[in-house]
Amino acid sequence: MPIRYERLAGTTTNAARLGRVHTPHGSFDTPAFMPVATAGAMKGLTPAQVRSTNSQIILNNAFHLMLRPGHERVRGFGGSHRFMRWDGPILTDSGGYQAFSMSDINALDEDGVTFRSFVDGSKVRLGPEESMAVQNALGADIIMAFDDCPPARAQLDEATYRRRVEEANARTVRWLDRCIQAHARPTEQGLFGIVQGGTLHDLRQASVRDVTSRDLPGFAIGGVAVGEGTAAIHDTVRFTAPLLPVDRPRYLMGVGYERDIVAAVEAGVDMFDCVLPTRNGRNANVFTRAGQLRLRNACHAEDHRPIEPGCGCEACAGGFSRGYLRHLFMAGEMLGPTLASLHNIHHFQTLMMEIRQAIAQDAWNAFLARWPCLAATDQAETDHD
Amino acid sequence: MPIRYERLAGTTTNAARLGRVHTPHGSFDTPAFMPVATAGAMKGLTPAQVRSTNSQIILNNAFHLMLRPGHERVRGFGGSHRFMRWDGPILTDSGGYQAFSMSDINALDEDGVTFRSFVDGSKVRLGPEESMAVQNALGADIIMAFDDCPPARAQLDEATYRRRVEEANARTVRWLDRCIQAHARPTEQGLFGIVQGGTLHDLRQASVRDVTSRDLPGFAIGGVAVGEGTAAIHDTVRFTAPLLPVDRPRYLMGVGYERDIVAAVEAGVDMFDCVLPTRNGRNANVFTRAGQLRLRNACHAEDHRPIEPGCGCEACAGGFSRGYLRHLFMAGEMLGPTLASLHNIHHFQTLMMEIRQAIAQDAWNAFLARWPCLAATDQAETDHD
Repeated sequence: MPIRYERLAGTTTNAARLGRVHTPHGSFDTPAFMPVATAGAMKGLTPAQVRSTNSQIILNNAFHLMLRPGHERVRGFGGSHRFMRWDGPILTDSGGYQAFSMSDINALDEDGVTFRSFVDGSKVRLGPEESMAVQNALGADIIMAFDDCPPARAQLDEATYRRRVEEANARTVRWLDRCIQAHARPTEQGLFGIVQGGTLHDLRQASVRDVTSRDLPGFAIGGVAVGEGTAAIHDTVRFTAPLLPVDRPRYLMGVGYERDIVAAVEAGVDMFDCVLPTRNGRNANVFTRAGQLRLRNACHAEDHRPIEPGCGCEACAGGFSRGYLRHLFMAGEMLGPTLASLHNIHHFQTLMMEIRQAIAQDAWNAFLARWPCLAATDQAETDHD
Repeated sequence: MPIRYERLAGTTTNAARLGRVHTPHGSFDTPAFMPVATAGAMKGLTPAQVRSTNSQIILNNAFHLMLRPGHERVRGFGGSHRFMRWDGPILTDSGGYQAFSMSDINALDEDGVTFRSFVDGSKVRLGPEESMAVQNALGADIIMAFDDCPPARAQLDEATYRRRVEEANARTVRWLDRCIQAHARPTEQGLFGIVQGGTLHDLRQASVRDVTSRDLPGFAIGGVAVGEGTAAIHDTVRFTAPLLPVDRPRYLMGVGYERDIVAAVEAGVDMFDCVLPTRNGRNANVFTRAGQLRLRNACHAEDHRPIEPGCGCEACAGGFSRGYLRHLFMAGEMLGPTLASLHNIHHFQTLMMEIRQAIAQDAWNAFLARWPCLAATDQAETDHD
């Protein structure tokens, strides 16, 4: 198998695991945070700058790259690694999630989904075989199964929700077998299966049983970042993570805020991805241990402090003040999003490093005390200053 | 005087000068190219990235910084150097040129110009005293006199043009004396005088006589990048540069393409600034020794070569292909402008380094042979590939 998980330590406090995942492009330490380079670029950051945030593995979106510049074109450049000049591990998602969100309501069938390209408006088909072909062409170290991800519970009545989740579970495992069958580079790229089941414990358990019965190098918890509240996310992750095989990496897709990551780590999750650091960075929202800051706020205009005193990122250690960063955003200067994204990714990687240290030293509560933001009731709306 | 010019060598071919300008924030080698960090940021580049282009001195626009974030606010941060974290030499322009271009036709009077702020629409006054106050607050090493820059010849009939240039000459020297009077930090910041005179030799000569009769640490040739053709620029520079004092740096404002820079160096000019590398870079236009490339063109889509094979910039030496760069621009990724600007500034700094080597080695013609773009008839429209 091209992907191998090595468990190094645990804690006496919870189910958190310190480990290392070995890939054809090197290893990464877990618990790991993967910043998202959607279209083969980390929004304004060079690969060297991404490295400077202590990121070890990044994520590409198969959906975006298949539409532009096209996965066969990326293959022609030697795959994602060579195309974007990132020589470390890369993970691609299946493209399914974005395709569903762009498709008409009835465009889902047993063979996949039909949607219109945002590039040229043409009709595009994406199913398990197509997703594997795209991901094989992109050449990431870890590729994801094409799954059926049901919508959040709130959008449906109870009975309809259960039926929809049961249907998604069944289709997900049928599609998983088609993915395994279609995967053309099994010795070079590790295919991860994805567990569905919504917020229903019995259906999560059923999905875990079905999906993990296939011999795959890793497993993901899908369908929890589709619009549920924090409590539902935490409950589902706490229930599902311990059911996954202990000798394979566990990946929680699309999550999330610091508290969501920490809660999932406590349940035994190893891998995370989220667009928050870059998306918020572009919008002048920066993360600190105490919570988020909105750099456009007038209170920062004459603030000489860096975003987070003591932070080692290029923005903070480079001496760029909150006042200067505010100016960059007010003036529409690209350097603002670049520096804020640098800081935000570094912030999440610092969280992960301290998580790994806390596990290695079995000092979980001391770690929690260093991150006041974990206690905030609604981080998205908090502006500590 | 805070600014001192040291002449190191010349050639037997032309009037080109190798030199060094000493400032309170270190020295820079001349002939020098100053990239433009308009609002206190080099459009998407960190200061470290600007350094990596071999830039030694940069330019800030007083006009932009006085309106946002405000020059007093920048002073509060310790001036431009500390505000934007550039510890090398900085030059600020007077703000006059931009103010004129934003003002109503009759807003110019003996005390300066009135214009509306692009930030909040308020009326703003800018004259010699205000410009000195702004530039003293920003704290650049080299500051520029507030001058009256007449429009290009083509816009007026012959007699009207001559009258307007005579008026500008007279006002420029009156304003220069007011600038000298108002300059509050003469031991820390060197004030350069600006020669006007349009494309009229006798009026250029008169302006040189008036302006250089003041004891200033440097002199600029103004009013040649306001819309004239290449021939008029070259003719004016060839006439004016030799008239300027040999023991002071000579700065040609707002110029230009490689051939314009080389022609001016041949006439004895030492300093240049231009937005071309960053503005063109943002628009997917990149410079090579053979001429410009438009990276959005379909012909680059599968091109594995860097912009310029052998180039040492972060984009080329980093292995980013033309195909990848085209993808970044097509996908609207910020990294495209960043890498293209990095390359373009590096391109101009490589030109300047080879110019300086050519003077040091008295090998001008061998230098010219290495830059085919200098022979292109209209570089802006050339797309060599």
